[in-house]
Amino acid sequence: TPPSTPAVMPTIYERTTAAAIAHDAVNLGQGFPDTEGPDWLLQLAARAITEPETGPRNQYAPGMGLPTLREAISDAQARRQGVELDPATQVMVTTGATEGISATILAFARPGSEVLTFEPHYDSYGACAALAGARLVGVALRGPEFRPDLDAFEAAITERTSMILLNTPHNPTGTVFSTEELTRIVALAVKHDLRIMCDEVYEHLVLSDARLPHRSILTIPGAEEVAVAVGSAGKSFSVTGWKVGWVTGSAELVSQVRGVKQFLSFSSGPAFQWAVGHGLQDDQGFFAQNTAELEAGRDLLRAGLEELGLAPNRAEAGYFVLGNVSGITSLSAAQFCRVLAEEVGVAAIPVSALTIQHRANPSDELEHLVRFAFCKDHATIEEGLRRMREHL
Amino acid sequence: TPPSTPAVMPTIYERTTAAAIAHDAVNLGQGFPDTEGPDWLLQLAARAITEPETGPRNQYAPGMGLPTLREAISDAQARRQGVELDPATQVMVTTGATEGISATILAFARPGSEVLTFEPHYDSYGACAALAGARLVGVALRGPEFRPDLDAFEAAITERTSMILLNTPHNPTGTVFSTEELTRIVALAVKHDLRIMCDEVYEHLVLSDARLPHRSILTIPGAEEVAVAVGSAGKSFSVTGWKVGWVTGSAELVSQVRGVKQFLSFSSGPAFQWAVGHGLQDDQGFFAQNTAELEAGRDLLRAGLEELGLAPNRAEAGYFVLGNVSGITSLSAAQFCRVLAEEVGVAAIPVSALTIQHRANPSDELEHLVRFAFCKDHATIEEGLRRMREHL
Ligand SMILES: CSCCC(=O)C(=O)O
Ligand SMILES: CSCCC(=O)C(=O)O
Repeated sequence: TPPSTPAVMPTIYERTTAAAIAHDAVNLGQGFPDTEGPDWLLQLAARAITEPETGPRNQYAPGMGLPTLREAISDAQARRQGVELDPATQVMVTTGATEGISATILAFARPGSEVLTFEPHYDSYGACAALAGARLVGVALRGPEFRPDLDAFEAAITERTSMILLNTPHNPTGTVFSTEELTRIVALAVKHDLRIMCDEVYEHLVLSDARLPHRSILTIPGAEEVAVAVGSAGKSFSVTGWKVGWVTGSAELVSQVRGVKQFLSFSSGPAFQWAVGHGLQDDQGFFAQNTAELEAGRDLLRAGLEELGLAPNRAEAGYFVLGNVSGITSLSAAQFCRVLAEEVGVAAIPVSALTIQHRANPSDELEHLVRFAFCKDHATIEEGLRRMREHL
Repeated sequence: TPPSTPAVMPTIYERTTAAAIAHDAVNLGQGFPDTEGPDWLLQLAARAITEPETGPRNQYAPGMGLPTLREAISDAQARRQGVELDPATQVMVTTGATEGISATILAFARPGSEVLTFEPHYDSYGACAALAGARLVGVALRGPEFRPDLDAFEAAITERTSMILLNTPHNPTGTVFSTEELTRIVALAVKHDLRIMCDEVYEHLVLSDARLPHRSILTIPGAEEVAVAVGSAGKSFSVTGWKVGWVTGSAELVSQVRGVKQFLSFSSGPAFQWAVGHGLQDDQGFFAQNTAELEAGRDLLRAGLEELGLAPNRAEAGYFVLGNVSGITSLSAAQFCRVLAEEVGVAAIPVSALTIQHRANPSDELEHLVRFAFCKDHATIEEGLRRMREHL
């Protein structure tokens, strides 16, 4: 076989988890909890499979998703964000947020166009833009605060730009975008007739000391014309394997995304959809308990990274904290992560793997950042820190 | 909202099922069983969710799929087809065959190229070709036998052709392609450097009076260089909602498809993958029992259609029988299906919805064919026939 091209390589998450297994390393790489989701939720899914009279059957879910889940998503958005969504036309269930992202980009990014995002960014953004025949252009978020530089962002819009990809709360920086920032971006999209995909998969994972609450793009005046939001049950309920996500927005935009989504996977997991519908109607305290646990994990990891001289960021939301290796080594983050996996026994992800080549405002800083996941149990985090303290 | 363009319309299956519900019609449209999959299989999936110590956890499955399922697919192909596949590199699990199809077409159909298939064809082929920036070209299968005309097929290959889409056993005709037919198509692909995607989702549903056994494309000498096969647990085990499918072929071609698939949905349903892995290792007699039941349903439906003057085809495999309305009405099949749903109370699918515009050898016959699903319980089929006898 000829050498793999980047497009054909497994994702950075796959490679990191494989390296972690090969080197018996503590896996602080791929973002998934190493606890299970709440037991009552698992029981609901299991019952929907074996007692179909209680829920859906094991045959195709409707292409837009189970009505009960679409209603639950609509109710949750009304309660949490004050956004009114018609469950019949403005909410579509997808095979995880990943499919919400791929279908939306394939629907809106014109071939030959540019797709603008902040970097670092979730790795599928660039791959999906390429599948759509478009090119991802990134504007760097800069530390220590990692707030968007909206002048640089505006300057990066060209006549070829067709779409904007946002992510709030942001992976991997934890930045929660402000109402003012979102408002300015929506105004730019309206002015230049751009579509917005706003990845909000960490919406339920904003930690208690965050300085801003999560604000959905759909709350912003004018967003209805240009934006869809993407949500995730996997992230919200710690069941990343279930792959239940959703796309919400105007009936018009959602139907355009459905035009693609229905031919990617058609539908998926009715039992999981059923359980998540119940979970969103009544989370039985899970969201609060989960963010408290994540926060304790974050605090533990931050303190350890601080002590190691890695200058962690605040990490106000999501699963990740960023360490900067430039104070302790001249290695790049990518080189550092290789040593970390192979010699120290800790898997983490260099932020450079979450960046692109076409930068509007290159930031060398991103070359020195390492992403560590704190959505892991405390013993795992402690063991990772112990290994780093021993070797670094 | 402006009028829907075809790309944005729900699929023909969605529309037919929605019309069936709206008119309280018997649904012989969308191809899914109205029984459940085998209880032991459902129990395995449920236990994998609630007792993760017995199986996978509820977090991300590996992007290529659970190793146990990949081994089971490899073992099953060795047993049934004599094909050797390395489970680590030559078998990839997808979110149903639908995603296997979309990822393969996006990986292999070059923008601006032509993709050649037989028609009628599964509706996602054309949509996925369009997403890849390619154009689907169809060569008609003609009744009453619906065998491929390989001279016409060869003549339809141009210098723009990049890919061939096959489907055996074929939806909706039930045609099982012969070794000679597949051999000639593989030779054409090798000669013209074309990739082949062979949709084999009905491989376990060949009825006892079929004149040919199913032969996987991967058994054909030379196929390794050019072809991948797509399989379906949903169709094989009557759990269409589980959306577990797979793509098999050389490590090289499978890795190219993975390059796309990993960014469409990443992974899905570890509990379902786990159960299907067990089911493929030991089907507990399900395949034989299922084809016997399908055959009885097919016989019942064929006899009724015959009596109604709809000249059904043999329907040797799969879920569907074709009726030809030209003997009883001057309506097109599309018009007939509308009347059937709204006035008679039976939902079926006009074969013209499974065809394309760019025909290499147009066949008017396809305008008169209606597809009826027999993967339904006998009471449902009887009621559908009763309604048709009453009105037609
Ligand atoms: C789909 S695997 C990636 C999981 C994740 O969200 C991350 O690690 O960023
Ligand atoms: C994905 S819904 C279509 C089901 C099916 O295979 C068919 O009806 O042809």
